[in-house]
Amino acid sequence: MSKSAAIVLAAGLGTRMKSAKPKVMHPLAGRPMVNHVIANLQRASVEEVVCIVGPDMPELEQTVAPHKTAIQKDRLGTGHAVLAAKDVMRGDEENILIAFGDTPLITDQTFHAMLEARKRADVVVLGFRPENPGAYGRLIVDAQNELQAIVEFKDADAEQRAIALCNSGVMCVDGKKLFPLLERITNDNAAGEYYLTDIVTLARKDGLHCGVVEGEEDELLGVNSRVELARAEAIAQDRLRHHAMVNGATLLDPASTHFSFDTRLGRDVVVEPNVFFGPGVNVGDNVTIKAFSHLEDTQVGNGVVMGPYARLRPGTDLHDDVKVGNFVEIKKAVIEKGAKVNHLSYIGDARVGAQANIGAGTITCNYDGFFKYHTDIGAGAFIGSNTALVAPVKIGDNANVGAGSTISKDVEAGDLGLTRAPQKNFVGWSDKFRAKQALRKNSK
Amino acid sequence: MSKSAAIVLAAGLGTRMKSAKPKVMHPLAGRPMVNHVIANLQRASVEEVVCIVGPDMPELEQTVAPHKTAIQKDRLGTGHAVLAAKDVMRGDEENILIAFGDTPLITDQTFHAMLEARKRADVVVLGFRPENPGAYGRLIVDAQNELQAIVEFKDADAEQRAIALCNSGVMCVDGKKLFPLLERITNDNAAGEYYLTDIVTLARKDGLHCGVVEGEEDELLGVNSRVELARAEAIAQDRLRHHAMVNGATLLDPASTHFSFDTRLGRDVVVEPNVFFGPGVNVGDNVTIKAFSHLEDTQVGNGVVMGPYARLRPGTDLHDDVKVGNFVEIKKAVIEKGAKVNHLSYIGDARVGAQANIGAGTITCNYDGFFKYHTDIGAGAFIGSNTALVAPVKIGDNANVGAGSTISKDVEAGDLGLTRAPQKNFVGWSDKFRAKQALRKNSK
Amino acid sequence: MSKSAAIVLAAGLGTRMKSAKPKVMHPLAGRPMVNHVIANLQRASVEEVVCIVGPDMPELEQTVAPHKTAIQKDRLGTGHAVLAAKDVMRGDEENILIAFGDTPLITDQTFHAMLEARKRADVVVLGFRPENPGAYGRLIVDAQNELQAIVEFKDADAEQRAIALCNSGVMCVDGKKLFPLLERITNDNAAGEYYLTDIVTLARKDGLHCGVVEGEEDELLGVNSRVELARAEAIAQDRLRHHAMVNGATLLDPASTHFSFDTRLGRDVVVEPNVFFGPGVNVGDNVTIKAFSHLEDTQVGNGVVMGPYARLRPGTDLHDDVKVGNFVEIKKAVIEKGAKVNHLSYIGDARVGAQANIGAGTITCNYDGFFKYHTDIGAGAFIGSNTALVAPVKIGDNANVGAGSTISKDVEAGDLGLTRAPQKNFVGWSDKFRAKQALRKNSK
Repeated sequence: MSKSAAIVLAAGLGTRMKSAKPKVMHPLAGRPMVNHVIANLQRASVEEVVCIVGPDMPELEQTVAPHKTAIQKDRLGTGHAVLAAKDVMRGDEENILIAFGDTPLITDQTFHAMLEARKRADVVVLGFRPENPGAYGRLIVDAQNELQAIVEFKDADAEQRAIALCNSGVMCVDGKKLFPLLERITNDNAAGEYYLTDIVTLARKDGLHCGVVEGEEDELLGVNSRVELARAEAIAQDRLRHHAMVNGATLLDPASTHFSFDTRLGRDVVVEPNVFFGPGVNVGDNVTIKAFSHLEDTQVGNGVVMGPYARLRPGTDLHDDVKVGNFVEIKKAVIEKGAKVNHLSYIGDARVGAQANIGAGTITCNYDGFFKYHTDIGAGAFIGSNTALVAPVKIGDNANVGAGSTISKDVEAGDLGLTRAPQKNFVGWSDKFRAKQALRKNSK
Repeated sequence: MSKSAAIVLAAGLGTRMKSAKPKVMHPLAGRPMVNHVIANLQRASVEEVVCIVGPDMPELEQTVAPHKTAIQKDRLGTGHAVLAAKDVMRGDEENILIAFGDTPLITDQTFHAMLEARKRADVVVLGFRPENPGAYGRLIVDAQNELQAIVEFKDADAEQRAIALCNSGVMCVDGKKLFPLLERITNDNAAGEYYLTDIVTLARKDGLHCGVVEGEEDELLGVNSRVELARAEAIAQDRLRHHAMVNGATLLDPASTHFSFDTRLGRDVVVEPNVFFGPGVNVGDNVTIKAFSHLEDTQVGNGVVMGPYARLRPGTDLHDDVKVGNFVEIKKAVIEKGAKVNHLSYIGDARVGAQANIGAGTITCNYDGFFKYHTDIGAGAFIGSNTALVAPVKIGDNANVGAGSTISKDVEAGDLGLTRAPQKNFVGWSDKFRAKQALRKNSK
Repeated sequence: MSKSAAIVLAAGLGTRMKSAKPKVMHPLAGRPMVNHVIANLQRASVEEVVCIVGPDMPELEQTVAPHKTAIQKDRLGTGHAVLAAKDVMRGDEENILIAFGDTPLITDQTFHAMLEARKRADVVVLGFRPENPGAYGRLIVDAQNELQAIVEFKDADAEQRAIALCNSGVMCVDGKKLFPLLERITNDNAAGEYYLTDIVTLARKDGLHCGVVEGEEDELLGVNSRVELARAEAIAQDRLRHHAMVNGATLLDPASTHFSFDTRLGRDVVVEPNVFFGPGVNVGDNVTIKAFSHLEDTQVGNGVVMGPYARLRPGTDLHDDVKVGNFVEIKKAVIEKGAKVNHLSYIGDARVGAQANIGAGTITCNYDGFFKYHTDIGAGAFIGSNTALVAPVKIGDNANVGAGSTISKDVEAGDLGLTRAPQKNFVGWSDKFRAKQALRKNSK
């Protein structure tokens, strides 16, 4: 394929979002909208991306890095915005796609189809057939499928308004012709703006070929409010859910599974209702993820069973056949093959050796208010319930720790470590205490 | 606006609910249905509300207090029910709205529009255009938009049945004319009941003006079963979700966010899937509420990050920039600016000072079986993991508590408090124990 | 009713499922698909069930046990598959229903209607009217409601394709006639397969009566992929949700309640959003189940309040008026009347006596790596917070256990048991420690 670039318009303020954050930075499936657009352009073999941002949007420039940015200082219309890219582009592009940072659902297949259509046309416009075409501009196409004109709704006659094919604004243009065309458009219209779509009229006048590629309505959803953001999120989620199921995962209630853009699930994975996958999660085969689990930046081996209420924080690495039970939080920790952390525990900054058994209520005390420390638990170790492991500390292979201990010194392999005050039973204490308190309570 | 009152019919038993509770007391978005009706009437400037209840419904009378109630002893129809209000009303009302306690979704705007329409008509009927008009009575309106008659479905001819505008039963009547009209209706019909709607015929005979205001079908959903209750809940939730998004909150999966009628969210609040807001929750700006959090009667400052699995019970007050992590329960407690309670803790009847750090597995022992006691944790204090704080107890500013301690005496500012039996390691104990148990297990 | 049998075709590999498990073993509402079919057949009074399985499907044979199985060695079509049952059937059946293991949603009422229709016809075919009839075979029925023929879509003319009534493939046939008819069908068709439906043509030729019973489209959903499995699960769940609501349970968000096929809820049960019922759960009256609760194989008495985040594992038995709070796991344990386990606890292999109070962070240490042991807590006992009970151990009636204890010896009734090292406060320790660590941190 010939050399292709893209200009992504991302300077919008998005005032209807009522947010301090630039609109295109709002995330979808765990990734800023604008990065969805860039990723799909790249999957369609676009090599160079320039984002048009507004002034004072340094976080947005960081978000799209290492891609280039150009600043649109004044808001004089889409044509004007695209022109801002001219000076930062290399100048030898054969195809330039123009996309929108707030229209994040266009697939790589559609971008690819536009680049393919560019071989037969100087300008390619992405059209779609919305259920309610409303006030969209209409695409006038002749019998040879040549785009004759884009007619704004307000200028369209009844016959033109009956056309179902609408203008999305997304285009792919011959790289040598884009900027010369843009420099000829005027702002001689009611809004006083420079419209990108006006290049179609100019191109037609020059006798250039203009073509149309059709996308799905869902792809063209633009996000201008949180309500539309939620709608876009739902579409993105449905795609990810469908993909996971087709690949061999059972989702008991797909609508309740929240994926991130990069979640990967193996075969015969069963996901109970209400599971949340943050970014960076890879799950092997034959894994069961019970309800109410929450995973972020986590590796999950084959045959793992987790949850309900498993909370896997970034840096968790579960090897094959591990069991993680309910109300268990794991962070920056490797849990080796077949180990079990079944209940009410916090394992952070740690290694848990193969086949080790971590009792209910075990806590790695990994922080002293200033630094974090590591806990190392050997293979086959057995940590008794309700135990605090004060890091840095090491429990040897096949060692035991007694229930209720606070372990601050290493326990060697095969040994037992224990801290326990002797049990005292106070005969009749409870009877007396209760009688006294009952009296106090009644006298109140 | 002139003086307005409302009569809310709420005497229905709701046998299809299969419940021991009067129908209109079933809650919607955390508040009894009937109170939704009353609240929306009041927002429409209705000053006086009388609820018609059945005999032996003392909890319902309490639920609607301080509003007046009148008891409908015999079930002789809606007209009869409204008459029951006569003696408890002041008698000087200019407008009397008649609404239904089991039709909780009528908006204040609709009630307001009825009161406005009353200025031009003696009787105003609320109509609606259901998708399936079925057996509803039809509203016969003339070219001047004057209501000519309400025709029951069974009495309607084909032409009348083709009318889309249906009778909701909700009315707004001139306060001086309502009861005189009602006293003239008869029960000369198949069911032997007094129908409120019959006053339209009488009013027309007297040459009075009758008008129509139209509501949405969703507003007119009547609740007679738990299935309809669930449908009404869904509509109420969708309204609350939409409202939160329009005001600048991101709901990752709006359908999974459960609001209460009075939930308030600030700007740039992000709500992950599956968050439950019980009544009495106010959330500031820039707050992130992670999945599976459950909040009731809680104040949340700006910049707070909570969850997943944050459980905030009544009386929780989180100041700005607080962090509440997973599997954390807080009840009747103030967590001051920037303090952190990150994992597996119960903080009840307590104050946690600014910037304090509460380790994993910290529990305030606030109850002795008879009384509750207070725990006070100073600013900058560091509570080691797996610690029990036996209230009443005070930890001073910048004090530390060692991991695994049970603290029953105060710790002064800058000091360390600790209870710990010395650690003993038993060499080879684990090896011997395992050999013995393995033998026992094999011999079984 | 006369003697009825069923043959369930369950030999399909289901390659589109991308699973190591035979297709019909994938569960729906907590039970393998094929067992749904069998259960509904039995509810329709079918006494004998034979499942046709593929070779090398021992788990499937176990799944359908004690029902008989026959193996279809070669995949030569549905007619051939049914014939495989001949030798294992008793031979005296009056009616033989033929159903599909991957079509799990046909109700017992529909099977019953087919058996009823069999009284008036030798062969009964189950028809349905799909929204998109697409390529389904069409049922040609005459004015007397006699089935004339089943026309495959590809053989149908335009008039026949306009017929809405489609063939589901499910049949009920005279037990004496089924196998003789089957033995006469040929594989003289494009696919070279023996089609069960061909018996209709043969039966008509013999002058036998053929009838049609109609089912709903939802019932006829066949499951060939995980996407269809999710759709079937959604339909099954909606039926269970509707049933629970009609019986007097409030589901705040029905779509978020996950039921199992055998979940039973009493009257005035309130289920908050996001509750998961695994198999074997019975819930009494006036029970409140708060959000994010997860129940499996659990008995729940009347008046119980649980959750949010109650995790009830198999063998849990909650008597009346018990309270189970947040982040509480219970397994194989009886919690007697009015007892409370309110926070962050693990109660396994235990009895908790009536009115006992289990403090936050209580853990029964029931496992030593080899064996499980029992914990017995008496009526009215009070277990202080953050306590480990090392089983086997017994706490007497009205005994107390001090907070932070590790109890390994019995505590008698009315006594207090306690393990606690004395508290030491180190004056100024924290100040010094912090100064030192701050220095280290800054020097890094």
